[in-house]
Amino acid sequence: MPLAVVALDGDDTLWHSETHFADAHDTFARVLAPYAGDGFDIVAHQYATERRNLELFGYGIKGFTLSMIETAIEVTTGRITAAEIRELLDLGKAMLAHPVELLPGVAETVEALAGRYRLVLVTKGDLFHQEQKVARSGLADRFERIEIVSEKDEATYRRIVSTMGVDPEQFLMVGNTVRSDVLPVLAIGGRAVQVPYSVTWDHEVVDHQATFPVLERLSDLPAWLDTNGGRWTTQSASG
Amino acid sequence: MPLAVVALDGDDTLWHSETHFADAHDTFARVLAPYAGDGFDIVAHQYATERRNLELFGYGIKGFTLSMIETAIEVTTGRITAAEIRELLDLGKAMLAHPVELLPGVAETVEALAGRYRLVLVTKGDLFHQEQKVARSGLADRFERIEIVSEKDEATYRRIVSTMGVDPEQFLMVGNTVRSDVLPVLAIGGRAVQVPYSVTWDHEVVDHQATFPVLERLSDLPAWLDTNGGRWTTQSASG
Repeated sequence: MPLAVVALDGDDTLWHSETHFADAHDTFARVLAPYAGDGFDIVAHQYATERRNLELFGYGIKGFTLSMIETAIEVTTGRITAAEIRELLDLGKAMLAHPVELLPGVAETVEALAGRYRLVLVTKGDLFHQEQKVARSGLADRFERIEIVSEKDEATYRRIVSTMGVDPEQFLMVGNTVRSDVLPVLAIGGRAVQVPYSVTWDHEVVDHQATFPVLERLSDLPAWLDTNGGRWTTQSASG
Repeated sequence: MPLAVVALDGDDTLWHSETHFADAHDTFARVLAPYAGDGFDIVAHQYATERRNLELFGYGIKGFTLSMIETAIEVTTGRITAAEIRELLDLGKAMLAHPVELLPGVAETVEALAGRYRLVLVTKGDLFHQEQKVARSGLADRFERIEIVSEKDEATYRRIVSTMGVDPEQFLMVGNTVRSDVLPVLAIGGRAVQVPYSVTWDHEVVDHQATFPVLERLSDLPAWLDTNGGRWTTQSASG
């Protein structure tokens, strides 16, 4: 059956996100510099706190900010000042208020895809902040549905494919992370293309043996689908 | 047309929520007691911070916790210690981890309604935490849909009524707050019943001139619908 639905990830596929966390880590390290020795790895401490808190906080910047404050209190053994904690709070707020910066070619690519496929945006994280980012992106009305989910697992994709009323093989997910955007979609019989981002959060790094197409940039997708979308159809028809 | 869908609010309609915030305010006041004079109104300060942060944080306990820390730093003019801020962090975590406590008669009432109407749960707040509460409630499989939304306004209810494929007059919303559960539903031509909770967050208090049914407890709803659901139908058919 022909491809009918193209699903696009938001963070680090349509717009920059992980680079903002990297910038935040730099600020965080600067705030803690008076307490930390040379070579102190604040990012590793922060990641350990985030992992520990994930089942309480889920994904998103509010949980990230709470974990920063917790990490700061721990690694300074309570010597950090309230003024410095206030800096971390303000850092989290600045991240939430940050304008959405689309990746190169995204607006034109979404426009081109919208003329040929039904589009759905599938993005993970904080409902309130993701809704704001979708609105700020200016892309919202190109999508038939916006799906903001707490976890991108097989059950989530199964529900979305069912809501769109298509077979899994008519559903293509495009995103930057193998763990969230590729493997669970392949597992339910859907299709997936990875468009890697320059930075990947440790939590999203996985070992795997799956093979799937990888494109250098999202703007390569329409031409790639012209060539390869048809091949999928033929394989499916003969299989 | 007959009533087809009964939509139920979650927090303070199916399970306790606002009382946990009230308990948190007590702990918060105790942590700040060494800094605050007699009669210091910490709840008013906290509410002012929450209102200021609402457009960045949205609703939910993570934002509440960040606002507590901000309030604590402000009202102590930076004298609060890291150990005390850690107590506030732990308070927020305890709220997130708190078991779901159903209100009296809720399980039986939802069961009774599920046999006669299509049910949808419409709850506002943090996606991740609300999903956890729905799962912990044990009620999830009684609902045809779970709608976790960032704001309960007319646009939200219009979308939900449309997703359920019914006319607004076939849709009844039942919840504790007039502002979120009643007024926007009446505004789009739907029906609403209020079941007040013992505590209402200041943000949800509104002046209004609407008239609508008020029941003392959710368990009164099935019998009330037996008597009055039919009257709605008749009015609608003759109107």
